[in-house]
Amino acid sequence: MGKIVLVVCDGLGDRPVKALNNKTPLEAARKPSLDYFAKNGITGLMHTINRGVAPGSDTSHLAIFGYDPEKYYFGRGPFEALGAGFELKEGDIAFRGNFAAIDSHKQILDRRAGRPENNETFVKAINGLKINNVTFFVVPGVSHRAAVVMRGKNLSSEVSDSDPHREGLSPLTVKPLNKNKSATLTSNALNKFLEKSRDILTTLPENAQRIKEGKPPANCVLVRGAGIFKKIPLFSERYNLKSACVAGGSLYKGVARSLGMEIIDVVGVTGTAETNLAGKFKTALQLLSTYDFVFVHVKATDVFSHDGDYLGKMKFIEKIDSAISVLKNSGALLVVTGDHSTSCELKEHTADPLPIMISGPGVRMDDVKTFSERACASGAMGHIKGLDLMPELINLLGKTELYGE
Amino acid sequence: MGKIVLVVCDGLGDRPVKALNNKTPLEAARKPSLDYFAKNGITGLMHTINRGVAPGSDTSHLAIFGYDPEKYYFGRGPFEALGAGFELKEGDIAFRGNFAAIDSHKQILDRRAGRPENNETFVKAINGLKINNVTFFVVPGVSHRAAVVMRGKNLSSEVSDSDPHREGLSPLTVKPLNKNKSATLTSNALNKFLEKSRDILTTLPENAQRIKEGKPPANCVLVRGAGIFKKIPLFSERYNLKSACVAGGSLYKGVARSLGMEIIDVVGVTGTAETNLAGKFKTALQLLSTYDFVFVHVKATDVFSHDGDYLGKMKFIEKIDSAISVLKNSGALLVVTGDHSTSCELKEHTADPLPIMISGPGVRMDDVKTFSERACASGAMGHIKGLDLMPELINLLGKTELYGE
Repeated sequence: MGKIVLVVCDGLGDRPVKALNNKTPLEAARKPSLDYFAKNGITGLMHTINRGVAPGSDTSHLAIFGYDPEKYYFGRGPFEALGAGFELKEGDIAFRGNFAAIDSHKQILDRRAGRPENNETFVKAINGLKINNVTFFVVPGVSHRAAVVMRGKNLSSEVSDSDPHREGLSPLTVKPLNKNKSATLTSNALNKFLEKSRDILTTLPENAQRIKEGKPPANCVLVRGAGIFKKIPLFSERYNLKSACVAGGSLYKGVARSLGMEIIDVVGVTGTAETNLAGKFKTALQLLSTYDFVFVHVKATDVFSHDGDYLGKMKFIEKIDSAISVLKNSGALLVVTGDHSTSCELKEHTADPLPIMISGPGVRMDDVKTFSERACASGAMGHIKGLDLMPELINLLGKTELYGE
Repeated sequence: MGKIVLVVCDGLGDRPVKALNNKTPLEAARKPSLDYFAKNGITGLMHTINRGVAPGSDTSHLAIFGYDPEKYYFGRGPFEALGAGFELKEGDIAFRGNFAAIDSHKQILDRRAGRPENNETFVKAINGLKINNVTFFVVPGVSHRAAVVMRGKNLSSEVSDSDPHREGLSPLTVKPLNKNKSATLTSNALNKFLEKSRDILTTLPENAQRIKEGKPPANCVLVRGAGIFKKIPLFSERYNLKSACVAGGSLYKGVARSLGMEIIDVVGVTGTAETNLAGKFKTALQLLSTYDFVFVHVKATDVFSHDGDYLGKMKFIEKIDSAISVLKNSGALLVVTGDHSTSCELKEHTADPLPIMISGPGVRMDDVKTFSERACASGAMGHIKGLDLMPELINLLGKTELYGE
């Protein structure tokens, strides 16, 4: 049976950059492998959610995997917790969390607490607290990051963030976002937990030590992006494809895990510009012997875009190009696209459609010879939506069920 | 913040005309400015409502402004009344009206009463009549045109036209279009008003004078296009854009006013082929210092099409081209399109999609070098719907809200 490698380069699409002779970073990059695939494949433009909608990375990945975010998106938190390796249960409320440093007036000095090397001591000190019959789990992430999970009866994700998203302010009191009892219960318990965490963290010897060393203490947890965990249909059941995920960022691993994909750890894969790209694509090639569908996520294209670093983005695309060449004779369908455009000029996500390319067995080739925003606009796939992708791929595998007789 | 000029040329799209070497009037026109914008912009085709749907100018403009006509279209009459400058109240029923000439057997001699130079005397004679607790306002338009507004309790727009749309027939009795009491009350009051108006107008000295001069009298009002006025969300609130409208035709001013756009009057702007095109576009340029969104409507392209005058349409497009050149370095996004196609051969609206072009900051250019139905068909925008336009523009301004995180 045919197999698929889906490569999502985060924030891949862009707008013309003056300093690049009005080309986008992708258009300006030297990318013989991607061009080779485009020349031997079919191309088009993809609106991940819809025309004019700038997607977050969570909703866009759901859509790309064929899961309508209107139906299956319950907030960012659960994906972060899953991506960090936590086993969520139906009804759990999860948040993205940061360890931060606050002063004696409760003003935030550093939203990232000086980016500690690891946060396990801090996590351990507050993990498992029980308040008002709610158990709080804290799941360590990279550096200052952690997911916070609330487990209890009748909890609600309709609560606000404690993270003010800016330094110099105090953490916000979490508020219920509707009048339901469950939202009030949730915010009450959460506020107590956040307060108690501050008390515990403040008295931690490790923080005294950090202060002695001139480092910001990790004496506060900030939470944002509340979401409720609900089980969603497994990718394997939906498509009858055994699937694996190769990603660095916890969000992408989390989305993949929520669909039941196997998370494959690769040495040196970090979700940063220094990630082990070669290892990622080599692993993807190897996984094709065991899996039908391999999802490869590359994060740094988005990071460069948010930093406005169009040259960095261009050069990183050239690195992807070099690493992806290993998939040239894989025999599988290769899909390359992004989850959303991120403009180096605006430094944020936009609704501009993404170039998309599919090469491999059975694909009707078109006349497009390079992989770029401009070239793919005249591709034979035309304009598709994110939700169209999986049905198109299942069709290419020859596995589409007949509609009618 | 980025700004937008939206130019809608009414009935712009067309079909191949044999006498133009099978080109459309737009394809045949010499139009260096429009081609310049297309070359430096992104192009596509727009189905204002949907594929295969031939839109009226009212529904099409709503859609272009991002207001689904299924939700926000309540009939043509209110837009005409608003466009004529009348202050409608929620629940008012409005009609398009014509002063017509009828004979003693109540047969219509001239649906336009010989196109009087102005109709203020006739309007004055019947404005403000009160029948069955309904007040009738008559709003003067150009020449034979007037809007009729009914104000009272529990009125319905579900009533038929009195205008038979043909000469030689008698005005029709207005009928309720459903069994609701309000439709019956409305049609009863309206019929009485129309009868009383005939009585008043017939005995008017000005009409005796017209007859003496061999002109058809303006002794009857014909109404059509009943609509109820309901407030719809303001353009400024929906998009956070301060908006202005430069248009000659009352319908277009009416649609713009219903959305809260500022109506800017320009000397010599008439909604006809003799309109002050240069003044329109110069004004649009000036308005960019005060407004974020400037809507420019050009009517005559549609008028020529309804007359089957393809040469006139072609030459008028060349005039638009010349006048629009003033927007070349405006720094704003420039959008040029139409509201629907009107075929010079069929002399009526068609569902053929419209060429559309957006040029300006942040736009991903494509390989299309001229602005025409044929060229824009291979543009990078692909096929869009009218309702897609505003989200695409808000995205280009970098103001799109994120869906997800």
